[in-house]
Amino acid sequence: MKYRVFVMLKSGVLDPQGEAIRHALGSLGFEGVNAVRQGKMIELDLAETDAAKAEEAARRMCEQLLANTVIESYRVEPA
Amino acid sequence: MKYRVFVMLKSGVLDPQGEAIRHALGSLGFEGVNAVRQGKMIELDLAETDAAKAEEAARRMCEQLLANTVIESYRVEPA
Repeated sequence: MKYRVFVMLKSGVLDPQGEAIRHALGSLGFEGVNAVRQGKMIELDLAETDAAKAEEAARRMCEQLLANTVIESYRVEPA
Repeated sequence: MKYRVFVMLKSGVLDPQGEAIRHALGSLGFEGVNAVRQGKMIELDLAETDAAKAEEAARRMCEQLLANTVIESYRVEPA
């Protein structure tokens, strides 16, 4: 089973990387960029064939390693 | 208009960051992780209200700044 995990900073958390991108886009002449937020996408290829078990495993991977749940939220979806 | 941009290394390109995650997951006791690839997700909030123009602008941002098109592919979708 393949899953995609999306990890983003929670909405109240400052995102300096996104802000840097926004600034750089402005320097390149792109106008009207209100906001930019940057996150991570992780593609997991799991040997588990049971969808429920595989998704549960992907969530545990997020909790334990892929996301810092203090400041980041994550979303798991089938790829 | 809000857009999500996904930037991934092209399939032939080695992904040491993904490989490091795979290894770390193994160390944490997760078995059966065949492969991991890591990419970036960028959320753009654009002032442009015309969907076609906004998406075109998002693509130009990818070409010029967000993706290194020599080794990375990108995908733009409405958020």
